[in-house]
Amino acid sequence: MSEKTNLLGLGIDFGTNSVRALILDLITGKELATSVSNYKSGEVGILLDKNDPVLARQNPADYLESMEISVRETVNKIKELGINVENIAGIGVDTTGSTPIPVDENMIPLAMKPEFKENLNAHAWLWKDHTSINESIQITELAAEMRPDFIAKCGGAYSSEWFFSKILHCLNVDKKVFDSAATWVECSDFIPAALAGVNNINDLKRNICAAGHKAMYSDDWNGYPDEEFLARLSPELVRLRKTLEKQAYTIDELAGNLSKEWAEKFGLKENIPIAIGAMDAHLGAIGSGVGKGTLVKIIGTSTCDIMVEDISSNIKPIPGVAGFVDHSVIPNYVGIEAGQSAVGDIFNWYITKVLKKDFSYFDTLTEKAQELKAGQSGLLSLDWNNGNRTILADFNLSGLILGQTLHTTDYEIYRALIEATAFGALKIIERIEEYGVQIKKVVNCGGIAEKNPLVMQIYADVTNRPMEVAESSQTVAMGSAIVGGWAGAKGTEGFENIEEIQQRVCRVKEKVYYPNADEAKVYAKIYKLYSKLHDSFGLKNHSSNLYDVMKELIEIKKNVIGN
Amino acid sequence: MSEKTNLLGLGIDFGTNSVRALILDLITGKELATSVSNYKSGEVGILLDKNDPVLARQNPADYLESMEISVRETVNKIKELGINVENIAGIGVDTTGSTPIPVDENMIPLAMKPEFKENLNAHAWLWKDHTSINESIQITELAAEMRPDFIAKCGGAYSSEWFFSKILHCLNVDKKVFDSAATWVECSDFIPAALAGVNNINDLKRNICAAGHKAMYSDDWNGYPDEEFLARLSPELVRLRKTLEKQAYTIDELAGNLSKEWAEKFGLKENIPIAIGAMDAHLGAIGSGVGKGTLVKIIGTSTCDIMVEDISSNIKPIPGVAGFVDHSVIPNYVGIEAGQSAVGDIFNWYITKVLKKDFSYFDTLTEKAQELKAGQSGLLSLDWNNGNRTILADFNLSGLILGQTLHTTDYEIYRALIEATAFGALKIIERIEEYGVQIKKVVNCGGIAEKNPLVMQIYADVTNRPMEVAESSQTVAMGSAIVGGWAGAKGTEGFENIEEIQQRVCRVKEKVYYPNADEAKVYAKIYKLYSKLHDSFGLKNHSSNLYDVMKELIEIKKNVIGN
Repeated sequence: MSEKTNLLGLGIDFGTNSVRALILDLITGKELATSVSNYKSGEVGILLDKNDPVLARQNPADYLESMEISVRETVNKIKELGINVENIAGIGVDTTGSTPIPVDENMIPLAMKPEFKENLNAHAWLWKDHTSINESIQITELAAEMRPDFIAKCGGAYSSEWFFSKILHCLNVDKKVFDSAATWVECSDFIPAALAGVNNINDLKRNICAAGHKAMYSDDWNGYPDEEFLARLSPELVRLRKTLEKQAYTIDELAGNLSKEWAEKFGLKENIPIAIGAMDAHLGAIGSGVGKGTLVKIIGTSTCDIMVEDISSNIKPIPGVAGFVDHSVIPNYVGIEAGQSAVGDIFNWYITKVLKKDFSYFDTLTEKAQELKAGQSGLLSLDWNNGNRTILADFNLSGLILGQTLHTTDYEIYRALIEATAFGALKIIERIEEYGVQIKKVVNCGGIAEKNPLVMQIYADVTNRPMEVAESSQTVAMGSAIVGGWAGAKGTEGFENIEEIQQRVCRVKEKVYYPNADEAKVYAKIYKLYSKLHDSFGLKNHSSNLYDVMKELIEIKKNVIGN
Repeated sequence: MSEKTNLLGLGIDFGTNSVRALILDLITGKELATSVSNYKSGEVGILLDKNDPVLARQNPADYLESMEISVRETVNKIKELGINVENIAGIGVDTTGSTPIPVDENMIPLAMKPEFKENLNAHAWLWKDHTSINESIQITELAAEMRPDFIAKCGGAYSSEWFFSKILHCLNVDKKVFDSAATWVECSDFIPAALAGVNNINDLKRNICAAGHKAMYSDDWNGYPDEEFLARLSPELVRLRKTLEKQAYTIDELAGNLSKEWAEKFGLKENIPIAIGAMDAHLGAIGSGVGKGTLVKIIGTSTCDIMVEDISSNIKPIPGVAGFVDHSVIPNYVGIEAGQSAVGDIFNWYITKVLKKDFSYFDTLTEKAQELKAGQSGLLSLDWNNGNRTILADFNLSGLILGQTLHTTDYEIYRALIEATAFGALKIIERIEEYGVQIKKVVNCGGIAEKNPLVMQIYADVTNRPMEVAESSQTVAMGSAIVGGWAGAKGTEGFENIEEIQQRVCRVKEKVYYPNADEAKVYAKIYKLYSKLHDSFGLKNHSSNLYDVMKELIEIKKNVIGN
């Protein structure tokens, strides 16, 4: 027992703008120390192109530099607390994804080589880079014709945000970078490999989470897409295919052990086990207590919705739900991943680009918006400013708001934007349940879940379900720490599987947001109108009469004001 | 000749927030003196109700008080210039409309009586009061069933802004006010009657402009709607009908002569002829040089589009075009009145209620918005924040904007709102021409036409027609002065008809906004999408597929940026 009270996991969580390190006590669930370091390049860590607003890249050197700072700081804090860092059983890593990085044969990112330093195409292609829309359409169409199973598992459409779209786009626009890359690695593979000192692409182990959700990897066929398929996209991709091994690995396996170089940088001992990496949302789900029947919503700039279902249940892929991958979240379960391509990003856009205010103005908006009842603003908005990930899987969409009068206020619009994201969330819940996966509980995590009670209450009212919030404010880093700790401790007593650690350390806050019946009734009416807009603008060959949309909103508003 | 160089007209123009007096030299066209006085009650002259955002009333006492101030100031300026005020040949009056006022048998507004002072229903029901939507639907439905001609002349729908809708609403919500009113008079009849000292409702002369455009008056039937029709709305309306005389008068007739009381207040001689009143837009059209083939657009908070066509041409009423009234603008022509229920009001709403900025911020928005090309923002908006007057004649509509990304800026939205009003303007032009009335020239007037070159250029590009701007910045008051002066001078040499005065005094600015061919081409594409939204949300039983709207906007944007 005394041994176990000191079993620690180190989680390293690479977000869009910064990296966070966290050391977690796997017995008590206590977060012992944490530290964040912002990426130093570009605009809050993102490299942009003035001439192309959808381009988003990152400098891989930032990842390494910020990781060094944040882990060392965290380790030092632990030391100052008098805790023995030798008790760190293992290291877990999560990153954004799909964020592929072109590397040379020695695993050095091209962007870190002098000749490519200034070339954005040689950098990490951040998850939200949308330059590859045409390629995603090409891949979707070819798969529909040739390998329909490939896209059935990713909701019926291969996204412009994903691995092969990005690489194919690079091939189309910058042949030199493509030719110079020995292979491309997901950020979630690059970091564990770097920590383990992997210096040859043949020694790289790729994770099933990114491979399955973003690169059409499946055990149902020969792992990654076959050469014949890729050759139809471009013969050049066959060379890439040869660098993708047959086997992708689950998080209960090791990427390697901490190298001497990184051990010194961190102030840790050598050879600590490093778990196979995963994408941030998936480990956030683990940190939030995801399990059968529990949907975890990670609500930040975008949203990721994660569930698992028994592999043995033989459920079929869900149309429009982008991810459906065996073992991708918790080994021996099917990982189901859906999401909204912008949530917090919509609120941030509204406040910074439209209202030209700083974030403190959210308080002003919230104060007034929370006094409104459902339907009172008369507004209805779609949440498509960054396209629609689930269930339309279409980035050639845009935002919409209607119902404005000459009296509509800034805070009414803010509330309508929140409601739009709630309606989008409900579309996902409905679609998942429609295909036989029962959602008994919704646990939210991420900055918005934690800091924005108005959003959570509206989500409860719109979905007509209680909204729980994960206790930790670092569930993603926590998930990494769980996975990392488990990598070192698995098999020891009480650590037979990840769920056992989850039961020890994952908690929800006391405050649960319960739906208000009156509000839920009004939102049910408005949701029908949202669905009408959703289908009219989102579905091909779908005709509808929208004459009643504005009129019903006016009627609903009148009734609400009258009450 | 020397006599005529001193022939003056006094125009008194009652706007939404203030009254302007103007003394015009009818020979040279020179505006000799002008003065404005703001109404002192309510919010910028409008009485509002916190619990009902669509209510808008005014205090009739404000009209009289502000008129006294502005006319006296103007007369004093003339005197200071050494000009003989005895040369004022006549007085013309225009007001907003339909703005009905309940009065007692002595023409005293109920609102000016102690017992009704605090009762908003006893005040002037300002044109933009929309409390009477249900009554307008009731009237439209009854007319469709019983007297289809009544509404054919007003575009197929009787508006909530108009005379009988408002009176019927008062009857429904405040029987005491209705019962206490001996009759209701349009503001454009109330003012000339007050100036002429009319103190009995039986001596009142009503103007054909307001009667025809707002109260279903026509020579084709027995003047105002018959008792049988009104009785079906409510038997109580029969009493009102008995106070509406058979004959309504054109602006070439006299309402009376200046009373001693008002002559003293103004510092003028008694008995100056007072022309029959008219609504502001109609006299603004006269001041802007309206005539056959010339469309005058008065662009302010809302827009009024005025044209005339020979009565002898026998053209038929135009569906969706609200006004179609013989003699209502220029005697012996059919007056055609269309309009957009909000234009400047949409821009003002956006800047004050959404952006929470003051009007000086328009400069910042304009500076950036004018650098954008057509299609560059990717946005598309409807101009329905205050409903749609022409051609849908439906106030149960609302604003809409789509195409937003996470990069959309405040000035892009501003430009999209301007474009929306331009598309709305084009809908009106197309509809009028479709029915055989040729538009050879468009003359714009009003604050926006004069002060906002960006709006004018976008109107030119969207409509693909040159936009001319009236030289005077007070075309409405000028129109009143023309009509007033003519009331006194008609029949004398060179003043045979109003067109002769127009030819002398109405001019356009040298700067003409010509359409840019490239911009016009892009706008033609976007206009098709606007029309799709217009029909989908605006027409009953109209199904459409909107799947391509967002996609085409994205495509257009790409092409524009690429060029």
